[in-house]
Amino acid sequence: MSKLWQKATDVNQLVDAFTVGKDRELDSQMAAFDVLGSLAHTRMLQSIGLLNSDDLEVVQKELKAIYKEIESGDFAIEADVEDVHSQVEMLLTRRIGEAGKKIHSGRSRNDQVLVDLKLFFRSELQQLVESTDALFRTMINLSEKHKDVLLPGYTHLQVAMPSSFGLWFGAYAESLADDLELVRAAWNITNKNPLGSAAGYGSSFPLNRTMTTELLGFDDLNYNVVYAQMGRGKTERIIAQAISAIAATLGRMAMDQVLYLSQNFAFVSYPENLTTGSSIMPHKKNPDVWEIMRGRCNRLQALPNDVAMMTTNLPSGYHREMQLLKELLFPAFSEIKSCLQMADFMLQNIAVKTDILSDAKYDYLFSVDEVNRLALNGTPFRDAYKQVGLAIEEGQFNPVKKVDHTHEGSVGNLMNDCIVANMDKMLDSFNFRRVNEAIEKLVK
Amino acid sequence: MSKLWQKATDVNQLVDAFTVGKDRELDSQMAAFDVLGSLAHTRMLQSIGLLNSDDLEVVQKELKAIYKEIESGDFAIEADVEDVHSQVEMLLTRRIGEAGKKIHSGRSRNDQVLVDLKLFFRSELQQLVESTDALFRTMINLSEKHKDVLLPGYTHLQVAMPSSFGLWFGAYAESLADDLELVRAAWNITNKNPLGSAAGYGSSFPLNRTMTTELLGFDDLNYNVVYAQMGRGKTERIIAQAISAIAATLGRMAMDQVLYLSQNFAFVSYPENLTTGSSIMPHKKNPDVWEIMRGRCNRLQALPNDVAMMTTNLPSGYHREMQLLKELLFPAFSEIKSCLQMADFMLQNIAVKTDILSDAKYDYLFSVDEVNRLALNGTPFRDAYKQVGLAIEEGQFNPVKKVDHTHEGSVGNLMNDCIVANMDKMLDSFNFRRVNEAIEKLVK
Amino acid sequence: MSKLWQKATDVNQLVDAFTVGKDRELDSQMAAFDVLGSLAHTRMLQSIGLLNSDDLEVVQKELKAIYKEIESGDFAIEADVEDVHSQVEMLLTRRIGEAGKKIHSGRSRNDQVLVDLKLFFRSELQQLVESTDALFRTMINLSEKHKDVLLPGYTHLQVAMPSSFGLWFGAYAESLADDLELVRAAWNITNKNPLGSAAGYGSSFPLNRTMTTELLGFDDLNYNVVYAQMGRGKTERIIAQAISAIAATLGRMAMDQVLYLSQNFAFVSYPENLTTGSSIMPHKKNPDVWEIMRGRCNRLQALPNDVAMMTTNLPSGYHREMQLLKELLFPAFSEIKSCLQMADFMLQNIAVKTDILSDAKYDYLFSVDEVNRLALNGTPFRDAYKQVGLAIEEGQFNPVKKVDHTHEGSVGNLMNDCIVANMDKMLDSFNFRRVNEAIEKLVK
Amino acid sequence: MSKLWQKATDVNQLVDAFTVGKDRELDSQMAAFDVLGSLAHTRMLQSIGLLNSDDLEVVQKELKAIYKEIESGDFAIEADVEDVHSQVEMLLTRRIGEAGKKIHSGRSRNDQVLVDLKLFFRSELQQLVESTDALFRTMINLSEKHKDVLLPGYTHLQVAMPSSFGLWFGAYAESLADDLELVRAAWNITNKNPLGSAAGYGSSFPLNRTMTTELLGFDDLNYNVVYAQMGRGKTERIIAQAISAIAATLGRMAMDQVLYLSQNFAFVSYPENLTTGSSIMPHKKNPDVWEIMRGRCNRLQALPNDVAMMTTNLPSGYHREMQLLKELLFPAFSEIKSCLQMADFMLQNIAVKTDILSDAKYDYLFSVDEVNRLALNGTPFRDAYKQVGLAIEEGQFNPVKKVDHTHEGSVGNLMNDCIVANMDKMLDSFNFRRVNEAIEKLVK
Repeated sequence: MSKLWQKATDVNQLVDAFTVGKDRELDSQMAAFDVLGSLAHTRMLQSIGLLNSDDLEVVQKELKAIYKEIESGDFAIEADVEDVHSQVEMLLTRRIGEAGKKIHSGRSRNDQVLVDLKLFFRSELQQLVESTDALFRTMINLSEKHKDVLLPGYTHLQVAMPSSFGLWFGAYAESLADDLELVRAAWNITNKNPLGSAAGYGSSFPLNRTMTTELLGFDDLNYNVVYAQMGRGKTERIIAQAISAIAATLGRMAMDQVLYLSQNFAFVSYPENLTTGSSIMPHKKNPDVWEIMRGRCNRLQALPNDVAMMTTNLPSGYHREMQLLKELLFPAFSEIKSCLQMADFMLQNIAVKTDILSDAKYDYLFSVDEVNRLALNGTPFRDAYKQVGLAIEEGQFNPVKKVDHTHEGSVGNLMNDCIVANMDKMLDSFNFRRVNEAIEKLVK
Repeated sequence: MSKLWQKATDVNQLVDAFTVGKDRELDSQMAAFDVLGSLAHTRMLQSIGLLNSDDLEVVQKELKAIYKEIESGDFAIEADVEDVHSQVEMLLTRRIGEAGKKIHSGRSRNDQVLVDLKLFFRSELQQLVESTDALFRTMINLSEKHKDVLLPGYTHLQVAMPSSFGLWFGAYAESLADDLELVRAAWNITNKNPLGSAAGYGSSFPLNRTMTTELLGFDDLNYNVVYAQMGRGKTERIIAQAISAIAATLGRMAMDQVLYLSQNFAFVSYPENLTTGSSIMPHKKNPDVWEIMRGRCNRLQALPNDVAMMTTNLPSGYHREMQLLKELLFPAFSEIKSCLQMADFMLQNIAVKTDILSDAKYDYLFSVDEVNRLALNGTPFRDAYKQVGLAIEEGQFNPVKKVDHTHEGSVGNLMNDCIVANMDKMLDSFNFRRVNEAIEKLVK
Repeated sequence: MSKLWQKATDVNQLVDAFTVGKDRELDSQMAAFDVLGSLAHTRMLQSIGLLNSDDLEVVQKELKAIYKEIESGDFAIEADVEDVHSQVEMLLTRRIGEAGKKIHSGRSRNDQVLVDLKLFFRSELQQLVESTDALFRTMINLSEKHKDVLLPGYTHLQVAMPSSFGLWFGAYAESLADDLELVRAAWNITNKNPLGSAAGYGSSFPLNRTMTTELLGFDDLNYNVVYAQMGRGKTERIIAQAISAIAATLGRMAMDQVLYLSQNFAFVSYPENLTTGSSIMPHKKNPDVWEIMRGRCNRLQALPNDVAMMTTNLPSGYHREMQLLKELLFPAFSEIKSCLQMADFMLQNIAVKTDILSDAKYDYLFSVDEVNRLALNGTPFRDAYKQVGLAIEEGQFNPVKKVDHTHEGSVGNLMNDCIVANMDKMLDSFNFRRVNEAIEKLVK
Repeated sequence: MSKLWQKATDVNQLVDAFTVGKDRELDSQMAAFDVLGSLAHTRMLQSIGLLNSDDLEVVQKELKAIYKEIESGDFAIEADVEDVHSQVEMLLTRRIGEAGKKIHSGRSRNDQVLVDLKLFFRSELQQLVESTDALFRTMINLSEKHKDVLLPGYTHLQVAMPSSFGLWFGAYAESLADDLELVRAAWNITNKNPLGSAAGYGSSFPLNRTMTTELLGFDDLNYNVVYAQMGRGKTERIIAQAISAIAATLGRMAMDQVLYLSQNFAFVSYPENLTTGSSIMPHKKNPDVWEIMRGRCNRLQALPNDVAMMTTNLPSGYHREMQLLKELLFPAFSEIKSCLQMADFMLQNIAVKTDILSDAKYDYLFSVDEVNRLALNGTPFRDAYKQVGLAIEEGQFNPVKKVDHTHEGSVGNLMNDCIVANMDKMLDSFNFRRVNEAIEKLVK
């Protein structure tokens, strides 16, 4: 086995390759956000006299042009350019000369990366919420559509009480709505401005951090500059927890799907082209999509721990390995979004079995309801219980396979409208419009 | 090695011992909350005609008496009683006869445990917020008190830029305030009523879940009964994440403390009785408290993963191992609270070194500020940079060890008042008063 | 909420309570091992002239007496004694005077704890291996007993190919045997002597570490004293991984059991007193034992991560939080042992369903074998495949529900004898006898 | 936001893209091993009459040619080919016609993947051991080279006792040697043959699994076919644990390096081109390599948990998400190897400071040795202790900054030869030669 460095002519190359890692590749996803940061930063620089109005004008014009190029895919980090920040600065300088270099005044690479990451995460969180909402609506629709189709309810994986597809689909919808609590916490922590914290200890320039906060549509500042730097790693961990919350809900649903697709349950089915099979095993409908989704969601459930392990016991202040968190977080956003969208797609094609409870093995599902019915009609509870027990023992128990549950959230009263109303309220609380308007104004 | 069951006369005992585990011990912490649940449940039962007014009156009176006994420590689960719920029901029946047994109508052990846990967690989360707030105030005070004492700021653990004790203490204060975002998400998810979900599939009785929601001071219902059951495990995981957020902040501070107490930094010190030492190594001031705190906080940072590992890939519906989550969560609340309180106590006794920067190894801290000063005074940036670089090279760099940072959140402008204002707003948003008033009304 | 320390008169008490934690309680499990360490250490001290022969004699005699008291349960840490080491030393001094104090020469509390832990872990690992072996034998027996009872084999949780109870039980047996690879790695790392490393930097006394290594039955030394100290945390992490390996096997088996006990599978059953049920749901046989086992095993699967999180990023040298690892490891040994023993007990009571495959939904299990049979008899594979596919399509497929697999490890040729032979070889490699003989010699 | 599938014309494409993921990309790393598996499998098929001698000859010849093409980089999975197995089979059939299709008889995709993975992992584990060994030798050399250079030893990060670079380097060397215990456990579990287990339930063909075991150089079989399938996920988890063991050692060393490079310690240094700095902060030598290494190692320490989370609570039998484990494991091997090699490279360039202890803050390091010296010379221990304590108190303590430790593994007696001997024994136990010879024979 040849050693890593035996072939190298310049040891720096080894060190560079090892320390840069996948940074260039990942950074390209932050290009648009890097430009946004510079658009705000330069306007602030001019306001405090560190950039003159003429320079500001050309810088703004060209940054907006670069922003549009990025949006339309006409941007790449050139071969010998270190990172996305250098690429933007180089493009600018190439086009407008010396003024392009001035955009770096009053900030350090540290707070530039911090603000880029926050803007990127903010955008990703918004997409995450939208994908979650789309799946939520699909599940509510399915809950309403199949609200009268009964399903055995299990406890301990034992046949226990009558349930329904209305309840089953609705439960996952309500779970997704609750998961957004975590996403909102992540959003609130993300949506604060670290710009101006420089290398984590502030600057001797008279920066106006409140101004960049407003320009970039942030809710507030990370005030303390040491805390702004601490946000690196912390923001990632909390976002990872938010993603893991949705992943936990999806993963559980995927497990249900795999089980319900098994011949031993056979509660749901999908069109042939959405499962895989075999011509000599025609019964086989392998639920590959749900299995892969379960796996991806479980991988995402482990993500917060990965972040914690990388940041635990580090004293305060910047440490270079913070950069590696991008390798964990960036793909996680794509994965959770593709899981949400794939789940939505699959569910739009689900078929549910309508006569499940006609199978005798589900008869005892109704024994508790029968006892309650007798009790409601006046039979003392204990007598009712004995009477039903005796009937079962003697094989005389003939359940009426009908469920008459009326209270809030039960088979007969799903209250999906309240669940939807809560979701709507949750969505409003993010106030995406405010953020989006600020960004639009900045790049116009 | 003798086998577990060779000594046993009754195999049931083995099964019981294995499945019950530490439940009786842990359940005793839920006693008061179990009574609260029954106080609300029985009032609802009466309202829908499943309990008559006379029975309600005696039941309420006695439940309130038991509640007071629990509050004053006069309550224990008797030797042959299975769990806290049975103990309460037994006490009741022993004192008021048959009416005592009626409190179990219209609910199952499952939703009884669910609501007990939520009430318990709610109470613990409130205490967690209060302990966090207390530490927050101490740190803000320290930040103000020592705002003029300078400290080297590190990046890559290399001496980098001037910082201050004002920044350092304030950073952790602001971090705690942000951590409460997670606690509030956990609070919002916890503060919804699962009562009435029975075994996870609802009931055929005409329960009024809205009524118990209001009586118990919950913000809202877990509507869908299948989702209410799914809350088991999910609530725990999200609470664990909230605890881990605070633990991450405390753990990092503990690492800083251990470092700063080392002879190689020597930035802070504590009275002798708060550290451990040795008479022949008089320099030694072992920071045992901070080390143990770091360890406890790191253990808590792993907690969400422990919960996830126990619940991953379980299909929907109740599973018996849910009960084991109590072994993880219950001690975690005590641990994080004792860490918060111990940190508060220690910090009230901290002494900071005031002349740290007089050591020559910190001279270069000021080189960037010097460049900026020249630039602000009109020297072109590059020339300023060269000038300072040259001075350093020639050993002629004599830094003015003074920091003149003025922007938001910097050494000279900590903006602790804004951080405190955000904390106050956060505390208000929990609306603890509303919850506490409902509980007081219920037990009066 | 009152602050922790408002009631305290002596702040030291607070610090003590926080830093000592559960140490006294946990340490009592190490008492016997602490005495073993001192028996070896004092003999070595005498050999290098740091203890005279008369002192050695009385010390050895009394330490052996204390050892027997511990073995027979007549030992407790007194109320005002700090830890187990102090208790032993105090007992000794109380009984034999000044000579008792000399046992502390040439070691520090650090290496005393290190060696105690290693001896304790070694004993626990031996018990773990024995419990694993017992379950292994039970599973091999069940595999042989039920080798002809067929079972559907699943892929993607879809009915796929014929399997058997012989295969199912045997698979878990072979898995346990392989898990011992990890236990042996943990054993090898544990079974090295750290005594003599003092506070982690060695001693200026002319200790004979080779001698204590032999007396305590260790395989070898941790040579480098800095490494000996590094073993704290590392040993625990690797032991946790070994435990997690067995837990993963048991947890998977528990999941299978829960599934196979569901009415939708109904492959196995247990006597009524080993499951829980309900008189009005007579079908219900809740598999609580297997659910709790699944939960406990999943908790143990998270254990290595808990240890890693507590030790990550700590620089070399002792840190006080190492002590907290006992809270993680000590209960883990009891838990995994009780799971192994409970699994053994349950399996001794399992009944398997013998006519599972008579259900038509399992008919297609045999389609692949039918194709192979035709191919082996000369029909070209593709034709055979078409022929079977056609028969299935036309509803003419009548499988012979018989499995004729002959190769190594298949339904008809389990090769359990080879699996047992590997297990026996594995057990031999631990060489427990050598260790046990050394200990017996030491205390005789 | 447009939905994933709105642009798709064929829903299958969506399902394919989601389920295939990065498989094609990752599989290309397994190409050579897939050919090895087929070389062995076809020889076995011929031996049991399922392939004739002529077919075997052309198949072997062409497979060996493909193997050589892969080795020399002339192999790629074509655009429309699903995976590496199909690519190899297609190449073969394209070149030798129908005979090429026969290599699939008597195995399923499942056991083909299983054996490919095991062969790939085996090769990677061998490289891991070699890289570990290289670093080990470098550290032993450094330990010997700098054995007389003293270093402060810390406990609680407090200056405690004299240590040396000899001890420090040697400790990490011994740690790496011990870590190989885990690697060997992983090797032993990996080095068993799963081929012949088909879809996890064996085959009705009279396969000779013992023959392929020998041909492929495996130590033994996974006998039970259900267990062979269970190896998926389990093998990955245990390999991840082995990697994490080495990562834990490297990560700790990286933390020490970062600390020792800080101006507050300044114990070691590196050539300028191996650290990053700044012309106006000439003191700054950012240890980026060690920080990135610490981060990568901590990420790897979380890996076993990622694997566990993805496999926990899955019942026995194949599940599609097993495939995702490749995304976790494959890059992990590259990462740990590049960390080992980079550590080796850096250490070959380390410079150690030789007069560290001349700084007065380290004077008390010698107080314990001084007490011991007096004691060894006849002063009763207590008197010696008082005498030294008094000298210190009066500022009269003048330590002789010389360490005279002689016992095994101490400053003056490192016993690196014994550590090397243990490493050599460990390396032998892997018996790589046996494996390599089998492979060479197979492809010759």
